[in-house]
Amino acid sequence: MLFFTQCFGAVLDLIHLRFQHYKAKRVFSAAGQLVCVVNPTHSLKYAPTRCAAAQASTEQGILPPCHHHEAVHDPQLVPCTCPLFSCPWEGHLEVVVSHLRQTHRINILQGAEIVFLATDMHLPAPTDWIIMHSCLGHQFLLVLRKQEKYEGHPQFFATMMLIGTPTQANNFTYRLELNRNQRRLKWEATPRSVLERVDSVISDGDCLVLNTSLAQLFADNGSLAIGIAITTSKVHNSEAEM
Amino acid sequence: MLFFTQCFGAVLDLIHLRFQHYKAKRVFSAAGQLVCVVNPTHSLKYAPTRCAAAQASTEQGILPPCHHHEAVHDPQLVPCTCPLFSCPWEGHLEVVVSHLRQTHRINILQGAEIVFLATDMHLPAPTDWIIMHSCLGHQFLLVLRKQEKYEGHPQFFATMMLIGTPTQANNFTYRLELNRNQRRLKWEATPRSVLERVDSVISDGDCLVLNTSLAQLFADNGSLAIGIAITTSKVHNSEAEM
Repeated sequence: MLFFTQCFGAVLDLIHLRFQHYKAKRVFSAAGQLVCVVNPTHSLKYAPTRCAAAQASTEQGILPPCHHHEAVHDPQLVPCTCPLFSCPWEGHLEVVVSHLRQTHRINILQGAEIVFLATDMHLPAPTDWIIMHSCLGHQFLLVLRKQEKYEGHPQFFATMMLIGTPTQANNFTYRLELNRNQRRLKWEATPRSVLERVDSVISDGDCLVLNTSLAQLFADNGSLAIGIAITTSKVHNSEAEM
Repeated sequence: MLFFTQCFGAVLDLIHLRFQHYKAKRVFSAAGQLVCVVNPTHSLKYAPTRCAAAQASTEQGILPPCHHHEAVHDPQLVPCTCPLFSCPWEGHLEVVVSHLRQTHRINILQGAEIVFLATDMHLPAPTDWIIMHSCLGHQFLLVLRKQEKYEGHPQFFATMMLIGTPTQANNFTYRLELNRNQRRLKWEATPRSVLERVDSVISDGDCLVLNTSLAQLFADNGSLAIGIAITTSKVHNSEAEM
């Protein structure tokens, strides 16, 4: 009986996902951009519950266990950059992508310009929407986080990080764009390296920040579409400013 | 003695203003844009003190008194749209500009693209930076406000309003742009009418919102430069919405 209930739940999830994807494609088809529907995942706080739920609904039934290591201060060893689970994994930069894909099942998308469609914006904080983006020979991590920096007042924070070193990150510029209801908000910046941790970027406020009321103005039926573009920076930009 | 102290204060103010203006011109001279240095004015809360201070430092020595009227529900009668003083003035739209200039000494600038340079960003909330902008045959009011929507956490809110009706406002699009330190933030929207009150726009969050940390990233030596551009919207936009 439990098996049938779970199967029915999985079928409903698939129908919901297909509907969201169809809706997003309809909205953005004119632009000819790749649309990625990103479902929310609760943050660290709810890790055990979410982990159990994910285990029940994945095809394999079991998530690969995280590899535990002693903390060492090798600058190339990064703590897991995915805020999806409270994951104690540490590893070299070169294997962060495979860790995120295999352990946390984060999708990876190709293309210079994509649309990130975050669903169910109404869910309570803390919640994350995460995707990896492969572009210009590198992998980037896009994190949209709903968080209560001030108690009782959730905000949305969006940032893009390079799965690479800070020096490599300086060669790129990323753009996040919201466009709806005769309003347009664009944020352009140099991506930060995953070595700098997503939590620090968000606590520093060095990212696109949206109050709930503004997010609602840009949302369509509970989903927020963020256009993403990555370009290479001018070679001497950083030198000129120094 | 008091006279000499006041004269010395006024001379110091002039030197400070000249320095800010020179700095702004240096930064934006390449773009060939008109730079307007806007000094802060505390909001309603500090009205009596500021009023007295302004009276002491102005050339005339006395500010024209506000005209008091009984509140009537004529939709063309607008309460004073300037948050500079707690002003009970009400008047027809046609005389709002002269009221703002004469009573509150708000500057008016010409040109499709200008740079608004708000000084002394560190001042405590509530503080306003206000300018009028004459463009495309209409007058607009730009308000930058530092306000604590959440106690202990001041934020900056920037919006542009048409000194005209909501129907007239629908014919325009305004853009606010911050650009510094390899970061760029752009906000584009249809201006709201002054009939809708600046307080409502800010409490709705339907404007450019900056956390203090983000404002600091864009600020240069305590001043925040905001590029402003106004364009006409597509001719049939407003008709389609009516």
